[in-house]
Amino acid sequence: MAGPGTVPQALARTRPLVRAGLESAVQRLAPPLARVAGYHLGWLDAEGRETLADGGKALRPTITLLAGEAVGAPAEDAVPGAVALELVHNFSLIHDDVMDGDAERRHRPTVWALFGVGEAIVSGDALAALAYAVLLDVDRPEAHRAARELSGATLRMIEGQSQDLAFESRVDVTEQECLEMATNKTGALISCAAALGAILGGGAGAQIDALRSYGRDVGVAFQAIDDLLGTWGEPEVTGKPSAGDLRQHKKTFPVVHALAAGGSDARELAEILSDGDTGDAGAVRALELLDRAGSRAWTESLAERHLRRAMDALAEADLAKVPVAELGEIASFAVGRNF
Amino acid sequence: MAGPGTVPQALARTRPLVRAGLESAVQRLAPPLARVAGYHLGWLDAEGRETLADGGKALRPTITLLAGEAVGAPAEDAVPGAVALELVHNFSLIHDDVMDGDAERRHRPTVWALFGVGEAIVSGDALAALAYAVLLDVDRPEAHRAARELSGATLRMIEGQSQDLAFESRVDVTEQECLEMATNKTGALISCAAALGAILGGGAGAQIDALRSYGRDVGVAFQAIDDLLGTWGEPEVTGKPSAGDLRQHKKTFPVVHALAAGGSDARELAEILSDGDTGDAGAVRALELLDRAGSRAWTESLAERHLRRAMDALAEADLAKVPVAELGEIASFAVGRNF
Repeated sequence: MAGPGTVPQALARTRPLVRAGLESAVQRLAPPLARVAGYHLGWLDAEGRETLADGGKALRPTITLLAGEAVGAPAEDAVPGAVALELVHNFSLIHDDVMDGDAERRHRPTVWALFGVGEAIVSGDALAALAYAVLLDVDRPEAHRAARELSGATLRMIEGQSQDLAFESRVDVTEQECLEMATNKTGALISCAAALGAILGGGAGAQIDALRSYGRDVGVAFQAIDDLLGTWGEPEVTGKPSAGDLRQHKKTFPVVHALAAGGSDARELAEILSDGDTGDAGAVRALELLDRAGSRAWTESLAERHLRRAMDALAEADLAKVPVAELGEIASFAVGRNF
Repeated sequence: MAGPGTVPQALARTRPLVRAGLESAVQRLAPPLARVAGYHLGWLDAEGRETLADGGKALRPTITLLAGEAVGAPAEDAVPGAVALELVHNFSLIHDDVMDGDAERRHRPTVWALFGVGEAIVSGDALAALAYAVLLDVDRPEAHRAARELSGATLRMIEGQSQDLAFESRVDVTEQECLEMATNKTGALISCAAALGAILGGGAGAQIDALRSYGRDVGVAFQAIDDLLGTWGEPEVTGKPSAGDLRQHKKTFPVVHALAAGGSDARELAEILSDGDTGDAGAVRALELLDRAGSRAWTESLAERHLRRAMDALAEADLAKVPVAELGEIASFAVGRNF
């Protein structure tokens, strides 16, 4: 296994395949849309010139290719799935940035901030449609099944986003509801990434199920770590305001844990998160209350538990050893931990 | 054939099938999303209570069902295509209203105006994903082909919207470019509506092609009439500001015709449409210039020509007579004319 902080070899190995597939997909768009997509993906600068900006780690498409290898297929067979998945993930990021009013992503202006809200909506819509076009161009029955998986996962992801928004105005969100929301919002698409590789690689039902489970639990672990970063992360590292999730009244894993503990601390936290505007003093006090409830450690252990469960799902299935080990490294890397 | 202004029988006949299919599709969404969708589709009021608001004429799904019958299949076989098409059409309306800042549709507040921009984006995204889920649930190879047709048509529709926006800042848009934009923006989805019925109905290649052509030309004719309404329509009838398309600097069929005529009138029109803000006086003068160029009659005859071409495509193909006659009535009704 790779040491802490090491970028898994698999990412470097699969990146060229994903990039080539994504580029040829984006070329199918009309030039103004391709330009916006190329900017968002980090290939073009604001003026449309080639650049090498950070376009994200492409974890999801790597998972798709490794899942294909795990069921014994060459990585190439899963490329349309990897590309479709990355397109759906990026359409959701472009639209999310509009909805959240986030003006910066990966240290660059977001699409809406640079090109306007209309362009952000329409280019996101184009990437979503392109995902199906890429996947359904595969002339095998597996493509039908893969596209059905993708539409189901997209619906669950959207349901998760909708739950996430609705929970902001509630202070009685349970740990179970939070888990369901994270499973939808983040787990559905990572689960789909793994399932698409297995489906396009011609995997058997039990293999597909195991990879689907792996992705779902990796997604929950990933969301839990994201919640920790959104609560205790340094603004210089995360590029987001300090305790941003608390200020937005998000019902993250640490928050629902502290609320569930009951008592006067939980009531005080609920009051802070019910205020119209949680300022600096409120955010500092909320962090104290989370620390006192042990919510940080609880969330860390929840992430570890789901990561372990993801590994167990793979270990119990009949899958190729090397890609399974790499899927383990990807998962550990994604959640920023190495066990 | 039905007399002028008569609502075609086919609409009334197919509506219950479409409505039932749409309702069962929307029930697959999480309740908050289903509520927004139900409001947009005219089933629910702002408070979520059942109502009977105008949810649109559902021309496209009727075309899908009739196209299925035209290739000899029962209308039921084409229902998933009709539902998918109507979902994509409505996702695009919800997002268009955000992009255009339109606060009213069918004499009710638009989704973004009532529920907010975030809800409008996410509910539109949900309807788009739901369209594929409905179509790909059909466990026949035709579903794969139909979904590929849908993704291609959606991409062309988006390309057309992107062209439409880009053309607003140009005064050298040619008639050919305008035709291409209308073929994309409006023709692609109506063409897809007809093709989906033929594909799901198990039609032969030549039958599918004929119905695809029919839809494309109906779409262009429909757009031409829409351009006339957006230019000369009475605000009380259209629910839009008078000469709204001119004020927005849209390069509609009448405008590109008048610009192409050249001379001092064309130059004056180009100047008016280059102004940052075209006020009442500019709009009135632009209308005079369009009238003098005969652009209204030219656009009407363009619509008639495409409508006739749509009919010819059906007449030349091997298709069932009754549904073809009904497709003719639908087309005439859609463009508000009876030949």
